[in-house]
Amino acid sequence: MEKAKAFLELTQGESDRVSSLAFPPHRLGTECSFYEYYSLRGIRVDRIEPGQLFCTFKVPPRLTDREGKLASGAIANLVDEVGGAVVYVEGLPMNVSVDMSISFLSSAKAGDELEVIGRVLGQKGGYSGTSVLVKNKTTGELIAEGRHSLFGKHASKM
Amino acid sequence: MEKAKAFLELTQGESDRVSSLAFPPHRLGTECSFYEYYSLRGIRVDRIEPGQLFCTFKVPPRLTDREGKLASGAIANLVDEVGGAVVYVEGLPMNVSVDMSISFLSSAKAGDELEVIGRVLGQKGGYSGTSVLVKNKTTGELIAEGRHSLFGKHASKM
Amino acid sequence: MEKAKAFLELTQGESDRVSSLAFPPHRLGTECSFYEYYSLRGIRVDRIEPGQLFCTFKVPPRLTDREGKLASGAIANLVDEVGGAVVYVEGLPMNVSVDMSISFLSSAKAGDELEVIGRVLGQKGGYSGTSVLVKNKTTGELIAEGRHSLFGKHASKM
Amino acid sequence: MEKAKAFLELTQGESDRVSSLAFPPHRLGTECSFYEYYSLRGIRVDRIEPGQLFCTFKVPPRLTDREGKLASGAIANLVDEVGGAVVYVEGLPMNVSVDMSISFLSSAKAGDELEVIGRVLGQKGGYSGTSVLVKNKTTGELIAEGRHSLFGKHASKM
Repeated sequence: MEKAKAFLELTQGESDRVSSLAFPPHRLGTECSFYEYYSLRGIRVDRIEPGQLFCTFKVPPRLTDREGKLASGAIANLVDEVGGAVVYVEGLPMNVSVDMSISFLSSAKAGDELEVIGRVLGQKGGYSGTSVLVKNKTTGELIAEGRHSLFGKHASKM
Repeated sequence: MEKAKAFLELTQGESDRVSSLAFPPHRLGTECSFYEYYSLRGIRVDRIEPGQLFCTFKVPPRLTDREGKLASGAIANLVDEVGGAVVYVEGLPMNVSVDMSISFLSSAKAGDELEVIGRVLGQKGGYSGTSVLVKNKTTGELIAEGRHSLFGKHASKM
Repeated sequence: MEKAKAFLELTQGESDRVSSLAFPPHRLGTECSFYEYYSLRGIRVDRIEPGQLFCTFKVPPRLTDREGKLASGAIANLVDEVGGAVVYVEGLPMNVSVDMSISFLSSAKAGDELEVIGRVLGQKGGYSGTSVLVKNKTTGELIAEGRHSLFGKHASKM
Repeated sequence: MEKAKAFLELTQGESDRVSSLAFPPHRLGTECSFYEYYSLRGIRVDRIEPGQLFCTFKVPPRLTDREGKLASGAIANLVDEVGGAVVYVEGLPMNVSVDMSISFLSSAKAGDELEVIGRVLGQKGGYSGTSVLVKNKTTGELIAEGRHSLFGKHASKM
């Protein structure tokens, strides 16, 4: 049991640094949250085509896991945000995530430059399916393939 | 295009606060990374049973999205880490994530107390399937159901 | 290329037996299709509780793959149909599948008796998340865990 | 309860037609099973490129659901088999399905001609990620996007 506690619970001094971070409230619905700044800072939108979004993201040290690789959760953040953005581009103002699935095919380390491509797969009523590819921009290797399904509450008048 | 850029790119002053955070390197493979502290700080392991792990996690403001809800990516972090921990408990020392899928069924806001339950679903060779439930601890409502499949490199002598 | 063709294309005599099957049209929207008879024949609903459905299904030879195991696709059919049925039980008359994900944890062979449990995980607008477990009824071993998300067109007035 | 039973259990005469089908045993591991003939008969492999497989499949009446649409389970069969074939093409002789996920974006009816494209996304040890697109060949509309992860037992000497 101690091993599992040690794996998940963070009792050491480093933990105090997290708690010392102040998170001033943001205006809900209009401003990005600190979480989004933390997850996305440094992402660059290179090109937008109808239903597609091409971004560049250099892996920052703050998003690496205990092995020094881009954390799986940080990849999930990219799938979440870039999938959400590509649908937002398509003109549906408010969407909620309903399903997300990701295959992790390779890894990235701090400093690697990633290409993140979001695509609208299709829309069915207020429901949108998106795909997000995360690639190593230098080698072209696919790091992760994700799907993110969103539901636009307003679009369907619910 | 400006809308999509504004959705993803973070050019405002808040962004500087993120960049001002220092991330001292951690010892790879043994220490938690800052990312893990950031994602998990405050989680408490309440109980461990064979193949199951019961945790409590109070939603911190740092993990909320622009609507003030626990971010989908932060839920993905819980599915990732708690699924990884429950397999780690089972004695496979090193695992890599191969697949993760999540259904988002409801939402949580800062201050809500969550129950996070990780379970081993089964193991096939070095491959482990885990399930992670994220519930509102007060109401019992299910916020998300995730599956996280991991692969233990050492277990299969690859 | 010949190998891949041989893997997928079915040019042998056995193929003629499939083509000789006659599929009389069914009344759309009210009658089960031949496909559903083919996939589900023999399933027994043992018990219904609010939001839950417990079934028994003895693996028929017609649903086995080239290794003699219950085909992955046949497991997907169970996740599809039992997930759909448990939401139908909940009173939403018409639903369309939007997402499905399955982890295959073990296998079953012809004659094995399965327990198939469908559960409603939650509902958000017209969107329903369901979970379907497929177990070996004798040993209790989990064969597959699936999620099936459906969307009720009528429920949301779209 | 009667409604749920009626939804899943097939007690009518049509059911007898299924039970009258004879399924002669096939040689395990070498011959296709009746299930595979039933699911795939009529598929045509048009083109094979490294890590990619392009097929055509005309929706047969036998695979339609009660609404007259290509059944979700039948789409899952395509994701399963075409994903398996594209990895088989890549030279890993024996694979087991470990994870599959599908987004259903549109529908198809009997007679529609589909394009089914299988791709290898990446390989990690004995683990392979594949993607399968199911499109309407005439309109180009995406009907489903699936991922299918397989694990090659022999490849990893387990």
